[in-house]
Amino acid sequence: MAALLPIDLRRSEVVPILQCLGRRLAEAVPGRENVPGFTRSTVDGYAVKAADTFGAGDGAPAYFTVAGEVLMGARPEQALELGEAVRISTGGMLPPGADAVLMVEHTELVGAEGIEVYRPVGPGENVIYADEDIRAGTEVYPANNLLRPQDIGYLAAMGELRLNVFAPLRVGIISTGDEIVPVEAKPSPGQVRDVNSYSLYGQVLLWGGEPVLYGVVKDDITLLSEKLIQAYESTDLILVSGGSSVGARDHTAEIINRMGAPGLVFHGLAVKPGKPTLGGVVDRKPVFGLPGHPAAALIAFDLMVAPLLKFGGYHQIQTGALPVRALISRSLASAPGREEYFRVKLQRRQGVLWADPVLGKSGLLKPMVEADGLIGVPLASEGIAAGTEVDVVLFGTDYVL
Amino acid sequence: MAALLPIDLRRSEVVPILQCLGRRLAEAVPGRENVPGFTRSTVDGYAVKAADTFGAGDGAPAYFTVAGEVLMGARPEQALELGEAVRISTGGMLPPGADAVLMVEHTELVGAEGIEVYRPVGPGENVIYADEDIRAGTEVYPANNLLRPQDIGYLAAMGELRLNVFAPLRVGIISTGDEIVPVEAKPSPGQVRDVNSYSLYGQVLLWGGEPVLYGVVKDDITLLSEKLIQAYESTDLILVSGGSSVGARDHTAEIINRMGAPGLVFHGLAVKPGKPTLGGVVDRKPVFGLPGHPAAALIAFDLMVAPLLKFGGYHQIQTGALPVRALISRSLASAPGREEYFRVKLQRRQGVLWADPVLGKSGLLKPMVEADGLIGVPLASEGIAAGTEVDVVLFGTDYVL
Repeated sequence: MAALLPIDLRRSEVVPILQCLGRRLAEAVPGRENVPGFTRSTVDGYAVKAADTFGAGDGAPAYFTVAGEVLMGARPEQALELGEAVRISTGGMLPPGADAVLMVEHTELVGAEGIEVYRPVGPGENVIYADEDIRAGTEVYPANNLLRPQDIGYLAAMGELRLNVFAPLRVGIISTGDEIVPVEAKPSPGQVRDVNSYSLYGQVLLWGGEPVLYGVVKDDITLLSEKLIQAYESTDLILVSGGSSVGARDHTAEIINRMGAPGLVFHGLAVKPGKPTLGGVVDRKPVFGLPGHPAAALIAFDLMVAPLLKFGGYHQIQTGALPVRALISRSLASAPGREEYFRVKLQRRQGVLWADPVLGKSGLLKPMVEADGLIGVPLASEGIAAGTEVDVVLFGTDYVL
Repeated sequence: MAALLPIDLRRSEVVPILQCLGRRLAEAVPGRENVPGFTRSTVDGYAVKAADTFGAGDGAPAYFTVAGEVLMGARPEQALELGEAVRISTGGMLPPGADAVLMVEHTELVGAEGIEVYRPVGPGENVIYADEDIRAGTEVYPANNLLRPQDIGYLAAMGELRLNVFAPLRVGIISTGDEIVPVEAKPSPGQVRDVNSYSLYGQVLLWGGEPVLYGVVKDDITLLSEKLIQAYESTDLILVSGGSSVGARDHTAEIINRMGAPGLVFHGLAVKPGKPTLGGVVDRKPVFGLPGHPAAALIAFDLMVAPLLKFGGYHQIQTGALPVRALISRSLASAPGREEYFRVKLQRRQGVLWADPVLGKSGLLKPMVEADGLIGVPLASEGIAAGTEVDVVLFGTDYVL
């Protein structure tokens, strides 16, 4: 197959972002603006100058005058004065002069307009900076990146409405065999209905391609040749299954050689089932002869065709259901009394699949985009020790792992 | 969530079979006819009466007169006479009187019209009986069965053109928050674009639902209530994300209680992230309040909403990419010199995931339908011992494992 793989079958198209799930980017996406675009609070509390809290402690609270409230979605105009605090909700914009937020849980009301705090905050604490999710001018995604739900959301945050993604490969499907009749027909004794067109149609869809059915052809070199040429004109890749009589597979091989260079690339695989598979290339378009037996045709598809559809620029997203086992690469602490979920990135190192925790401020979008999946720490647990085997529930991840 | 799960949100619809990939059957499918419908050969060779080969051995070959050939797709009319053999290809129909097929590799030509065979075949050897893939009157699939590519092919073999499957659940998506602006808008300082509508849209699609966007609503109980009622009228399940200001989540809870019984079911989860999630039911339709933070909203979706979409009757198919580790439950022999693929069914027994080989005659469709995935035995290997850990490449399997 070495001769087939370097062929780049990809075409790109510009598609509305909501239709891009499971597609791959045809070009890198640059950061067009800063996101979130302003300094935000990650908690409910009070925006302050961090320096005003320095030295606060159990015996010596820092005192602030509450000088108003930041409204959600509004730009606070008034700058903080010395010793002032401003009420702020999660996601609110810090007023000029503020550089940190006190969590409401760490403050106590004093009278109608004052608060006390018993521990200091550092500059930037409980804050996301204007360019922390996306920095204008840097690369947000490289070309070929697979788009999962979180990626669609992340790009929406930057105002992307349409994306340049790879188009699904069009895959022509032809069934051959003198004994094969269309599914609509009532088979006479000796005839069977066309199973391969239907299971291959599903398989192509599953792997992100666009199947095009060309029906059933008798084991006749002229009829098959006409059908192959017809499929060749309007698809990117052709699958011919069957030819159950002994000479029929040779028809497919002969036609591929006649259609154009380089022609037949391999004829037969040291694979069971799947031995009678053949493949060729006609002027950059791959043509496969798959076995007539439906189970063998599906296995040959998985081995030979699916990788081309994936390289073609997209791949169905894999998610949910079956978790993947991996070793956690660092210890994670969790408070008992709640289930805690940690995002992890999967990486195979020296043959071992590791789950690397993706840490980051809670208000950021980026960690959800960088992660491949989640691990859960049960309600009663205090955490997981590094090296423990964990079940990773996949978000939707890439095929390269 | 116990109060939510027993709700049956499913509607069924009759859909052309090629559009049924990843859907679940809304009713059991009975075997409407026998498949393949006639006795077929599974090899290239000679159809014979098995009894004529009894006693054949190295020193004493059985001799047959070749009395013609079975044409593919045709019904052989002439019955076999004593000592006769008829040439047959894989998939050909056995002539009357024949009950087994000699593999061509095990025969030797003798003169122009004779063959010799040095080993006996038993009745039924290298043969598939008329009802071996599907027997008329038995159940082919139970209701709720997930349709993968091989299932589509299997049902096509029986001539099914349309299937009664569950419809995707319509999921209404509403974003709230005074700071949220539509993706098309240019946010002012303090405002951010609507990420949740986009990532939840992808998430709903990924889990087999039909997302319907209702846009962004301010944190105003009247506006939110209007939007919720609008979504309620034309969807099966509603997701409200956000309400980042402190009182906003209470709006959602209050509206759910006002809309109808039983109203709010839970308010807050012992889960991190995802704590502010709430959920209720209004006259059998679930309504969820998801956290405003996009990463937390996705996790809450995975935990609370995805299971409902799955119970709703479908689930995206999981396949390819990441193999699943399992223990092989019996030893498998493989000839060195070829890669061999075995179909396996996954089953969890006492907490251990086992891969049970699905064996069966090579020409049958059924094993490809009964299996969950494949294991490969490498070129140079002689097989796998029972109890060995194997990587199972999934065909597309169900979520219940």
